[in-house]
Amino acid sequence: MIQTPYLLFLGDAPDQLGAKVAQGIKDWRPEHAVGQFRMDGCQADLGLTDMTLTQARAAGAKTLVIGVANRGGVISPAWKKVLVMALEEGFDLASGLHNLLRDEPDLVAVAEACGRELHDVRVPEVNYPIANGVRRSGKRCLAVGTDCSVGKMYTALAMDKAMQAKGMKATFRATGQTGILITGDGVPLDAVVADFMAGSVEWLTPDNDDDHWDLIEGQGSLFHVSYSGVTMALVHGGQPDALILSHEPTRPHMRGLPGYDLPSLEQLRDTALPLARVANPACQVVGVSVNTAGMSEDAALSYLDGVEKRMGLPTVDPFRQGAERLADALAAY
Amino acid sequence: MIQTPYLLFLGDAPDQLGAKVAQGIKDWRPEHAVGQFRMDGCQADLGLTDMTLTQARAAGAKTLVIGVANRGGVISPAWKKVLVMALEEGFDLASGLHNLLRDEPDLVAVAEACGRELHDVRVPEVNYPIANGVRRSGKRCLAVGTDCSVGKMYTALAMDKAMQAKGMKATFRATGQTGILITGDGVPLDAVVADFMAGSVEWLTPDNDDDHWDLIEGQGSLFHVSYSGVTMALVHGGQPDALILSHEPTRPHMRGLPGYDLPSLEQLRDTALPLARVANPACQVVGVSVNTAGMSEDAALSYLDGVEKRMGLPTVDPFRQGAERLADALAAY
Repeated sequence: MIQTPYLLFLGDAPDQLGAKVAQGIKDWRPEHAVGQFRMDGCQADLGLTDMTLTQARAAGAKTLVIGVANRGGVISPAWKKVLVMALEEGFDLASGLHNLLRDEPDLVAVAEACGRELHDVRVPEVNYPIANGVRRSGKRCLAVGTDCSVGKMYTALAMDKAMQAKGMKATFRATGQTGILITGDGVPLDAVVADFMAGSVEWLTPDNDDDHWDLIEGQGSLFHVSYSGVTMALVHGGQPDALILSHEPTRPHMRGLPGYDLPSLEQLRDTALPLARVANPACQVVGVSVNTAGMSEDAALSYLDGVEKRMGLPTVDPFRQGAERLADALAAY
Repeated sequence: MIQTPYLLFLGDAPDQLGAKVAQGIKDWRPEHAVGQFRMDGCQADLGLTDMTLTQARAAGAKTLVIGVANRGGVISPAWKKVLVMALEEGFDLASGLHNLLRDEPDLVAVAEACGRELHDVRVPEVNYPIANGVRRSGKRCLAVGTDCSVGKMYTALAMDKAMQAKGMKATFRATGQTGILITGDGVPLDAVVADFMAGSVEWLTPDNDDDHWDLIEGQGSLFHVSYSGVTMALVHGGQPDALILSHEPTRPHMRGLPGYDLPSLEQLRDTALPLARVANPACQVVGVSVNTAGMSEDAALSYLDGVEKRMGLPTVDPFRQGAERLADALAAY
């Protein structure tokens, strides 16, 4: 568990996109973002107060989060000085980079000397159990996609926000590095050893109040041959009561797999639902979430309307329209 | 890759079942089994020549395989003396125990001093790629089960044997520890990190002659919520041309999951085949393999006959009957 709130480290990000992890934290957990730390030449700006390490500590920040991605995911030498100083000032460090904090001997030595923690959110820090399939109390919702990267995390976070606004009991459950950095906790599912995948999802979504919803961050796709096993572990380990179908309509082929067509939303429904019912016979498909970023407003609204009529399910783009109607679908469950 | 042939170490096995890994090697790769090494009090006997380490080296053995399971999977102190001597005599060691050889400092030190290798077949020794989904030449067959431990490995090994006897080109591809020890090579799939599961199966079953069959050892079940993600990675990473449905008819519930019923063979077919066709649109279900160990001969034959009529597929118990008819099904593919 990463200590919040954060100072968001933007480093020398070459552009706004380079700071998208920090942007996610600021968008979805503004209460976790005390301020931003930018180095000379940083081209990203989250609109947060620029702070020195000392100012951020005084404002209550506990962890410096590396919210910027370098080419190759490495920890740049230019960053090192700041990271070492942050440890010395009393910050923990958290990172989702491929280049692990724990593989940097100087950071390890300083963290140890200062009694601070290094969080590499790509690496599991828990010995997860093997899944036991026992029914848990409370309710769970999972977004499953026709492909990878079609907006499943965004959908779950937007539903969480809409449900909180309605006073519903809901918790976003992160299963990827960005989600973990946003919430401070979760399971880096793609880095979990095969035998323990479903168990890690059970661990992440334990017994809860009967009217509480876990909004589980989806991963991969049952139709994406590189990652379908990870998705399957979510479908069975998560025991979802409700599925949201997620889609991006403009993609020419499955992400990274030329020659593989995307399935239709109907195919996704007819594949995912029977599999989910193995673990939870009550599971229902309750809505559709479409990423229409690649379409004009008119085309998007017309597409959403068409899907809604065809599928008979509330269909929204949570970015354009918010996720209230999906939250309503869970409220009516 | 483990060097063959082997001396099979039965240690102080309390009964024949305790030596079942060694038994598997002797049954399926007798040419790999130069002899057996038994300690005082050993209650298992494979019917192989009892050999000293020196005799086995003289007979060509290159690796001492721990073919016995202790309670808890630990390396017993009583074994240590033999294992150290074996390294000194020039043997590599191979083990599928939970207790890793590499976690025993004395074995590591002696192996290093003697220039020998320690193979823990539960631990991946390769950096597998992420699956790319590209079609590979050659043909692949995968057994998928209604449950775990219904005889999928046995089926693949029996088919391999039958196909070799017919002069067909076939290779058994191990994905579990026993299979890896039997063949000397493979992928310990349940220990692979989630993101690389399907890629490890692609790596295991590369391009081959058009008339060559990989017989991929199945794992888990699409209906077993603890391990279904592992099975999914086999279905997509393996790109099977042919599926064998495997079943054990007397089981009261899914293995280790009270309250979870086994699916029917029809459900298994209707779930596995569409998923397999995502990666290989030509995939067909070509046969059924039933483990009838819990049934009388009459009941077994009658059951097999019933399934064959119902499913319209060659249906055999490869243990009672051999796998010739399944091999024929691949020959006719």
